Amino acid sequence: MAVKQFDDLTERRLSREDIFKGRVFGVHVDKVRLPDGRSSTREVIDHCDGVAVLALDQENRVYLVRQYRYVFSRVMLELPAGKLEPGETPAEGAARELKEETGIEPEVLFPLGRFIPSCGCFSETLHLFMARDLKLGDQHLDAGEFLNVELLPFDELYHRCMDGEIEDSKTIIAVLKAKELMQRG
Amino acid sequence: MAVKQFDDLTERRLSREDIFKGRVFGVHVDKVRLPDGRSSTREVIDHCDGVAVLALDQENRVYLVRQYRYVFSRVMLELPAGKLEPGETPAEGAARELKEETGIEPEVLFPLGRFIPSCGCFSETLHLFMARDLKLGDQHLDAGEFLNVELLPFDELYHRCMDGEIEDSKTIIAVLKAKELMQRG
Repeated sequence: MAVKQFDDLTERRLSREDIFKGRVFGVHVDKVRLPDGRSSTREVIDHCDGVAVLALDQENRVYLVRQYRYVFSRVMLELPAGKLEPGETPAEGAARELKEETGIEPEVLFPLGRFIPSCGCFSETLHLFMARDLKLGDQHLDAGEFLNVELLPFDELYHRCMDGEIEDSKTIIAVLKAKELMQRG
Repeated sequence: MAVKQFDDLTERRLSREDIFKGRVFGVHVDKVRLPDGRSSTREVIDHCDGVAVLALDQENRVYLVRQYRYVFSRVMLELPAGKLEPGETPAEGAARELKEETGIEPEVLFPLGRFIPSCGCFSETLHLFMARDLKLGDQHLDAGEFLNVELLPFDELYHRCMDGEIEDSKTIIAVLKAKELMQRG
């Protein structure tokens, strides 16, 4: 078979044009130098990093939020999640978002790793956590935030991730990783 | 605990402003009516759907591509993937992208489900496939496409997904789902 190999894949920025600065994300377009010396453009969405939390209670049930996702014109069932605030560590952001959306304050919060949702053009990295030993308090939704909290047995959630009923990346990755870690014991 | 419940979470479009139409994505901002009757804005990135393929050879090795991801200023190791072309089914797009990027033509291609990378503002859905019974042919990279093909044992790839070395969502989801399906036999 004929397959090329490149020694250096780096693309170098030549110039930048700022296109949009919104409330949620920004857009810029860079002119870049490709590995073969030619030039091209790279369209980039600037989005801050975020967190998501798999909060598991004593009966192995997971706290989920059902939210209307305007881009897809439907409600989706997802792990509690949100954007990191400036200066916040991922663990701090995870605890804050979990408390705001569900009222839960966990005694134990440990990382399930991070991932990049769409590495081609979207700059977000998401940090995943598992929460245990949950204390239930009051929810504090942001203004303009509407969601319903639902409890689902972990095994049921796992099957919904495997069979395609759950389509949200952060929920699928956190649940499948947690399943593996639980099986290891 | 005090947790609100909403009967109808639907957000309704009031008006639209087109912001940007790029080569890779577009951006629009909609004014919407929230469930409580107030109005807000929704920033949306329009991106076509895509495909990714976990191609496994006779020795249980996976074909990966190492690409420079400009948004993250580094190379990343990922499954072969790409955007669907107009009129193409996900399976057709998966076969085409696999052939273009690695030269592989599979005898067997079956779905591993689909997922939404970032449901809050990014309209892309990604369709995952597993390929078996691989024939090796010639690669046909797009103009301006630079990548290196690498073979990695499936178990090594699985561990890199679990330990956080692989951060790409499509690669993690396809590998963890495939691992579960292989364990079921």
